[in-house]
Order: sequence, then C-alpha cells, then structure tokens
Amino acid sequence: MILTLSCPDQRGIVAKVSAFLYERGCNILDAQQFDDQETGQFFMRVVFDADGADRAALRGDFGTLADGLKMKWTLRDRAERYRVLLLASKFDHCLADLVYRWRIGELPMDITGVVSNHPAQTYAHIDLKDLPFHHLPVTKETKFEQEAELWKLIQETKTDIVVLARYMQVLSDGLSAKLQGRCINIHHSFLPGFKGAKPYHQAHARGVKLIGASAHYVTGDLDEGPIIEQDVERISHRDTPEDLVRKGRDIERRVLARALRYRLEDRVLLNGRKTVVFTD
Amino acid sequence: MILTLSCPDQRGIVAKVSAFLYERGCNILDAQQFDDQETGQFFMRVVFDADGADRAALRGDFGTLADGLKMKWTLRDRAERYRVLLLASKFDHCLADLVYRWRIGELPMDITGVVSNHPAQTYAHIDLKDLPFHHLPVTKETKFEQEAELWKLIQETKTDIVVLARYMQVLSDGLSAKLQGRCINIHHSFLPGFKGAKPYHQAHARGVKLIGASAHYVTGDLDEGPIIEQDVERISHRDTPEDLVRKGRDIERRVLARALRYRLEDRVLLNGRKTVVFTD
Amino acid sequence: MILTLSCPDQRGIVAKVSAFLYERGCNILDAQQFDDQETGQFFMRVVFDADGADRAALRGDFGTLADGLKMKWTLRDRAERYRVLLLASKFDHCLADLVYRWRIGELPMDITGVVSNHPAQTYAHIDLKDLPFHHLPVTKETKFEQEAELWKLIQETKTDIVVLARYMQVLSDGLSAKLQGRCINIHHSFLPGFKGAKPYHQAHARGVKLIGASAHYVTGDLDEGPIIEQDVERISHRDTPEDLVRKGRDIERRVLARALRYRLEDRVLLNGRKTVVFTD
Amino acid sequence: MILTLSCPDQRGIVAKVSAFLYERGCNILDAQQFDDQETGQFFMRVVFDADGADRAALRGDFGTLADGLKMKWTLRDRAERYRVLLLASKFDHCLADLVYRWRIGELPMDITGVVSNHPAQTYAHIDLKDLPFHHLPVTKETKFEQEAELWKLIQETKTDIVVLARYMQVLSDGLSAKLQGRCINIHHSFLPGFKGAKPYHQAHARGVKLIGASAHYVTGDLDEGPIIEQDVERISHRDTPEDLVRKGRDIERRVLARALRYRLEDRVLLNGRKTVVFTD
Repeated sequence: MILTLSCPDQRGIVAKVSAFLYERGCNILDAQQFDDQETGQFFMRVVFDADGADRAALRGDFGTLADGLKMKWTLRDRAERYRVLLLASKFDHCLADLVYRWRIGELPMDITGVVSNHPAQTYAHIDLKDLPFHHLPVTKETKFEQEAELWKLIQETKTDIVVLARYMQVLSDGLSAKLQGRCINIHHSFLPGFKGAKPYHQAHARGVKLIGASAHYVTGDLDEGPIIEQDVERISHRDTPEDLVRKGRDIERRVLARALRYRLEDRVLLNGRKTVVFTD
Repeated sequence: MILTLSCPDQRGIVAKVSAFLYERGCNILDAQQFDDQETGQFFMRVVFDADGADRAALRGDFGTLADGLKMKWTLRDRAERYRVLLLASKFDHCLADLVYRWRIGELPMDITGVVSNHPAQTYAHIDLKDLPFHHLPVTKETKFEQEAELWKLIQETKTDIVVLARYMQVLSDGLSAKLQGRCINIHHSFLPGFKGAKPYHQAHARGVKLIGASAHYVTGDLDEGPIIEQDVERISHRDTPEDLVRKGRDIERRVLARALRYRLEDRVLLNGRKTVVFTD
Repeated sequence: MILTLSCPDQRGIVAKVSAFLYERGCNILDAQQFDDQETGQFFMRVVFDADGADRAALRGDFGTLADGLKMKWTLRDRAERYRVLLLASKFDHCLADLVYRWRIGELPMDITGVVSNHPAQTYAHIDLKDLPFHHLPVTKETKFEQEAELWKLIQETKTDIVVLARYMQVLSDGLSAKLQGRCINIHHSFLPGFKGAKPYHQAHARGVKLIGASAHYVTGDLDEGPIIEQDVERISHRDTPEDLVRKGRDIERRVLARALRYRLEDRVLLNGRKTVVFTD
Repeated sequence: MILTLSCPDQRGIVAKVSAFLYERGCNILDAQQFDDQETGQFFMRVVFDADGADRAALRGDFGTLADGLKMKWTLRDRAERYRVLLLASKFDHCLADLVYRWRIGELPMDITGVVSNHPAQTYAHIDLKDLPFHHLPVTKETKFEQEAELWKLIQETKTDIVVLARYMQVLSDGLSAKLQGRCINIHHSFLPGFKGAKPYHQAHARGVKLIGASAHYVTGDLDEGPIIEQDVERISHRDTPEDLVRKGRDIERRVLARALRYRLEDRVLLNGRKTVVFTD
C-alpha cells in the first residue's frame, strides 16, 4: 500500500507512523520524507506490505493517529488503479503517447475516457477503439455549458485524475478549483519564460539556446500552478520555429508522461504553490 | 586565419568567397554558414590556411570584395590573441575559473587586467600575481567617474573583449553602446525567467525543477542582450536557496567559459537581437 | 536539392562546388563541411535551390566534376522521399513511435512496409492499417531463407533504408554488407559499455548512474557499426532492472527517431568506422 | 547529526530507529531509506537534531540497538569535518577545483595535505600555500616504499578520506584494501566503455557522440570499484581528441566534486559492488 501524508512538523512523526505500521505487521518497503524548514511542513510517502493487516481497521486507526497530528493523508492499495480522463485537442502527440504507454503497461491507470473539442475521426490513426470518446466542442459562448458537461462526465465516470494532454483550453477558475491537485497540464514552454500564445515562436525570436516544457497542476492561473516536472533540449540558430515545435513535442510528451506516472504512484504532494516530488 | 562575415543574402556569396581564397593559395580548413530566411541575412565563418599569401594584400583585396556585397566582416590571424579585461565582484567563482582555464591554455587570450570594486586582497586565494589589478570602487554617486576610468583603462590596455564575470554592476547605456558585441555578461538565471535580484531565491519560491544560467552580450538592457550560451541543471524540493546558489555557480562558470571561448574563436556573430553561434 | 560529397582533401573543393552551383543559377541555402585532418578526407553537405536548373544536366555535369576530385556523392531532390522498410519484433515502442512521427509529417519518408517475425495481430494497437505487413518468422534453421525473402522484399519495394526498430535479430554478414550505409539499428545500451544480452540488467548489476542508447549503421558486427546518435538518462539505486527497461524505451525511441531523421535529410556521411553528422 | 546504517532487512527497523531517536529527544530533519529487494539489504540515512541529547550515551545506546539488528553504522556530528588528503599528478584541474570549492566553503572538510609525484612548483598557480605539500615521487621500483610512506602519512594526519584527483597511479591491492570505502577516484571516461590508456582517444577513434566521467570507490581493480557519480557531454565529429580532453576536464571536475560532496555528507553507502547514494 502507499501512504502519503503532510502535517506541521513536530518531533516523533516518523517514530509514530513507523511504530503504527510495525505494530500492525506491515513491512516498510520504501519511505521518503521531507521537512520543509521554511514553512515548517513535514511530508512523507511510505510504501509498505500489509498482507496480514485488516485494511479497514488500518485505515480507521490511521485516521485517529492522523487527526492527532493534523495530517492531510492518503492511503491506497497499489492494486486500485487511478481512473484517468484524457483531454486533448488537435495536437495529439501527448494523447497518442499516453495511450501507448498505458497499453504496454507503463502507466498503471484505468482510462475513463477521451474528451476532445474535435470529433473522433481526428484521432483515426491512434488506437482509441476500446476507450469511450466524448466530443465536447467548445466556443466562448458555450464554455460554461461545456464545462458543466465535462464536470458531469468526471463525476459519472468516477474520474480521479484529469490530464490536459495539450487540451489548448483554459479551464475556468471554478472547475480548476474543483480539480485541485488532480488535474495535470503540460505547458509547451519552460515556465515561466514565455507566457501567452506561441511560446516556441517567442523563444525563437529571443534567440534562446534551450527550450523546454513544464507539467504542472492546474489552478485558476493556467500556467502558474505548482510545477511537477520540467525538461529542456538544446537548440541552435539553425532551428526554425517549426523545428522548435517538433523538438518541443518530444519534450512535452516525456515531461507529461513522467509527471503523470509520478502522480499515479502518489509521488506528488502539494506544498503551497510548490510540489514535493518523491522521485524514484 | 579566421574570416567571419554577414551580409544581405544573394546568389554566389560562397562561390565568390571560396574562389577568392582559392585564387590566393589559401586552403579552407573549416567553414560554416547560415542563411537566415526570416531576415534575409547571410552569415559565414571560414577558417583557412594562408601560408603562401601576403596578409596585407589579402585584407585589402577582401575589403573590395566585401564592399561590393555590403558585408560586415572580420579577418584575424589565429596567432593574434584577443586582449581580454575581466571584471569581477566579491563572487569570484567565474573569475577563478577563467584565470585557471587561461593558465592551462584552454582559453587563447591575453588578459589585460582584472577590475573589481573590491580590493585586491579579496582575491588572495586566486593566483592573479602576474595580472594587472585595478581596484575601481563604485557607488551610485561615483558611477559616472568610475565608468570613465574603466573606459580609459579599456582603451589604454587595447582591450578587445570585456567579461563581466559576476561583476554585479549594470553598465550604463553609454558604456554598453561603446562595447557592443564585445562585452559578455553571465546572468545567474535561465533567461528570461527570473529577472531582478536573487533569481535563485525566486526560482526556489516558484518550485521549479531546473535552474540555469545565460551568457549574453551586454546591451543597455542588462539581461536582455543577445544570448550566446545557456545551460541548466536539475534540482528538487530538497534544494534550499543556498543549494541553488551552489549549483548555480557550477552552471555559471561553465556557461561563461563556453561563451568566452566561442567569442575568442570568432564563432559568435550578431544577428539583430540574436546570435549565430558556429559551435564546434 | 541536397548534395552530399566526400573526397580526399585538396585546395579549392568548396570554390569549385560553389562556383559550379552559382554558374547554374542555384542558390545555396545551407552548407556544412568538415575536413578530417587525421584521415585527409573532406566532407560536405549543401542544400540549394535549383529552380532554374535542368536537373538531368546538373547531375551529369556534377558527375564530371566529381570524377575529377575522386568524390563519393549523392544528389537528391528533397521532394523525392526515401523509401523505408521497418523491421520490428515484439517490443514495438520504436515501431509505434516511428509510425506516429511519420503520420504527423515529422519524418519525410515513404514506408514500404513493416516486417516482423511475429504475426500482424501482435501490433493490433498500432495503426498500421495502410501499411503492407510481412510476417517473416525466423529460426536458426530458416535464417538463410528468411534473409533471402527479406532481401527480395527490399528489392521489390525499392526500399532505400532499412530500420531495425528493436528487430532483435542479427543480420548475417552477407546481408549487412548489401545494406551498407542504409540500415540503421538501435542498440539498447550506451555503446560500447554493455554488449550481449540484457544490457539493462548488466547496467543494474554494475550500479551505473546513467543508461543510454545508440543508433548506428549495421555492419557485420551488430553493435559495432558507425554510431549516428546516442543519448543517456540519469538513474539511481532505486531503479530496478524493469525501471531501466522502461527508461530505456524512452531513450531508444528518441535516439532512433533522431538518427533516422538525420539519415532522411542526408545529414549522415560515412567516415570509415565513424560518421560525420551535419546536425541542424 | 548524521546516522547511516545498513543491515539485513526485517520488519520494524524504521520503527525502532525512529523510536530510539524520539525517546532521546532528537528531531529527524531528513531521512532516506532503501530496501534492496534483490539482496535483502536495508539502507538508511537520518539527519537529526540532537541538542538535548548526551552524545556519548546516544552512541553507546545505539550500538546496542545496532548489534541486535546486525547493522553496519556510522554516527557523526556534522560539525566534525572529515579529514581529506588530496593526491594529484601533473593534470591539476581536479585539484585546483577541489581546493577552490573548499576555500569558498562549498566542501565541508579539512584538507590534511596534498600529495603528488611531482614537485610543489608544478602547482605554483594554485593557491596551496596553507596546505601541507608532500612530494612523493614514484617509480615501478619504488612503488612499494612510496605507498608505505603514503600510508604512514594517512595515519599520521588522521586522514579519513583519500581523493585521487587525477593521480594517474594505480594503488596496490593492499593499499586499496586498507582504504575500502574511503578512497575516491575519478576515471576520465564513462565507465566501463573505454578502459586502459587514453580513453578520450579511444572514444574519438570509435566516433562516439557522448563522452563522460565516473567517480568511484577504489578497489583492487582500479576502474571497477563501486560507482558514485557519472556524467556526460555531447560531442561531434568536429571534436578532435584534444577537444575531448578539454571537455573531459569539465566533466571530471564536476563529477569528482559531486561525488566527494556526497561522501562528505555521508550520502554514499556501500552495497556490495554498488553504491546507494542518497542525493539531495
């Protein structure tokens, strides 16, 4: 099982948590922790083997311990896969990549569906055949209704995590708030360098020697949410804006896939405007 | 010898330049060129062996060819080393690094001196003993006079290239203009992400997963000049602002050293707000 | 059009080639050259605009020039796409990746077919529907016949380039010789570190901190052909052999895709046991 | 204080260690652990605040706990700096780099001396003035005596860690055994690619596209000890063997500095032929 927790720091947290698990016959397989000395918050992720333990009792008892320490916490059986909804637009390289990784077992999740503002035939060359597809077109006028539909879909499908796989639409503040900590976006630029439209063209005009991408949690401010993962690639004066877009696709898909995998494995903990990512 | 040139693109430039060299018994050892299809400017760097040729005649004749093609150009014997003035402040990691690389023959230049707003004993642990040291303290009130002194020094020492090795002072617009294309600064941040003071602290507050540094030509706008070289390193939530400063030092010194080496080998050509860097 | 050439170095090659193009009304858009001072070989790649020129005459005339300079050369209209045959095995991440990149126009080629020693349904989740699929099973006993069939297929489909996209079969010396300079393999390890089977397991046992992949031309010695492209990723003690295999997939597919793109754009020139790669 | 430990895995180790610290009023600031499921060994590093605790009692009591769990362990006050002896040869870029980092406070250690088989004036341009310098020339015939002298020096100076900063001499099996886990070498190549002399020349001849360096613990087999840190840089056909040597210097010094810093902060635990490195 995977336990994550965060709470105000104080003496004995590790001792209490590890004693709790030990007394219930659980064996810790991996544990990482972080003590943010600036904010006084403590973060921990524990992977443990709970074969002998009564899961319901474990959860109930831990709740009592957690309340005493003012913890935010999650406890999940690794066999229970997260349910993930993928939102895409006409640029489908991230969508194709995530679906491929899912099929070969690299991303342990259940895909609850694919949502796009473009019709299904846009993705004819990606194998989506056993996945529910939802065409939810959106315009400025219909955004409110479309988001309502989207939210209904998220609820009906019991979706845990929403991935904006180059969705190209800004979620409203209201919907963003509902999805706090469970909606991941890929920003096609090394944040916070080039905001706004066509960041690769901006990067080209500026003559930068590196371009990058950022995966982050969605908040009201589209490109300013807590960053989960970033990467860059070297470019040169020979690269046209189109070359940057091509190289950018490679960075975007690997950054988004990494960020999603971290999230699926409960490695990402929110720390205010930042994240704690317990990487492997 | 090394020839660099830029001019409006037109047919036959390579043919004319290479025929010019061939007819004078010169052998091209390396050549790189770039045709900027956006701006219509053409850029070229040619390294050639001119053993048989009369250097003065070569230069004179090339001037005639260049005029006809509206070229900006430079022609330099590789044996003539550039004369470089190093400006530092109390953070001396870039200064120490450049001096070491110069001593072991990695940077082919003559150092005309070291300038600092701190006294010589600040650098007691760096071997500057055979280098002229100039203590030019500066305050808001004396900046004008200090820059006049600096400019006089640049002229008297026949300095070709000025390196701001973490100089921590913004050159005035006037002095920047005089040093166009021959003053290199290292900006301790991945441009244009975090402007202003304490960029590593800003990066930490934002929770980024990569930090970097940029070497660029100085223009009136300190951190916005044409970028020559950039690099990044991966960081994590465990890194304190002090860790970022430490990692930043490593990036800064290697980025500045690379940029300076490119400049010393005439690999950097100005292209408006950008550079063309013919790397090896 | 793209011209590539290599020949023993001598004075005036650039002058002669550029004069040749200029006289025929061609405009050089990009040119890179390299003078290997160890072997005395000269290498050049020229991209030029030949709108006015008679292609057949151009080719014929260039042949005369080339003969005089003992050149190996190629001249190709960029509109004529290379014909590429993809060979795969049960690990299909490179195959899926190349087909996706081809569909979105990132790899300018015509795919002449997909060959595998596994049946078509192995690839049901990749969109191969408009591509000829050839199931050519192979055993130790039938290798000779299978390679004969493969060679026949290469000839019948007028295939220019063969890509071993994790084909997992060693081509015989005879077939390798026939495909010299036009068969690219991806070796799932940072050459020449870990030869033989299960390189990621070897890397894990050795406790390395970086793993990588190499794309290279196939020669008789499977993993020793001229290297075209390599890349690495950082790993840690937490990574199991399975994690290395997963991270390896990412490196393999981007290294193979880059190498193939370089080859499709005539950027790769053979230089004995090495390559000259004129990257963008 | 920093506690490191390794022992056969069993339930309750974390619980016992953290309870031990909690009961003695210690506050855990950082902890990382790793359970090697292949070998059944458990590894842990704990940084804690022990202000109230009696250090001697802490150490004594922990010894009792450790014996019961068959631990190898270390417990160190962060204020007690390791004593480090630097061994160099005529290539002094790593030596100069380590000394500089030490002077600016980046490497928390006491340097017990510098040993070289070259005389002191070799290093005239590095500021070694307050460091004991030992000229210990070595030939095949005098190696035995020289190592005896070196060992005596290590003992007399109470040296904890020996750094081969491009020492260019293979330590004998006997001396290597005495220095197990406390002697770090920088190997000027990406292990285990190019063994033997002139690895950069070998890499050049092979036409690789990346070169690297490895820092590792010294064992009897010079380049085969447990790897602590590695890094690479991209190269191209334009790079001569001399360029590779230059780029190699940059990689070597940053890899060695990182490895040493990890060791000084007790982040490196031996795991058979491998290391567990609890990075920051």
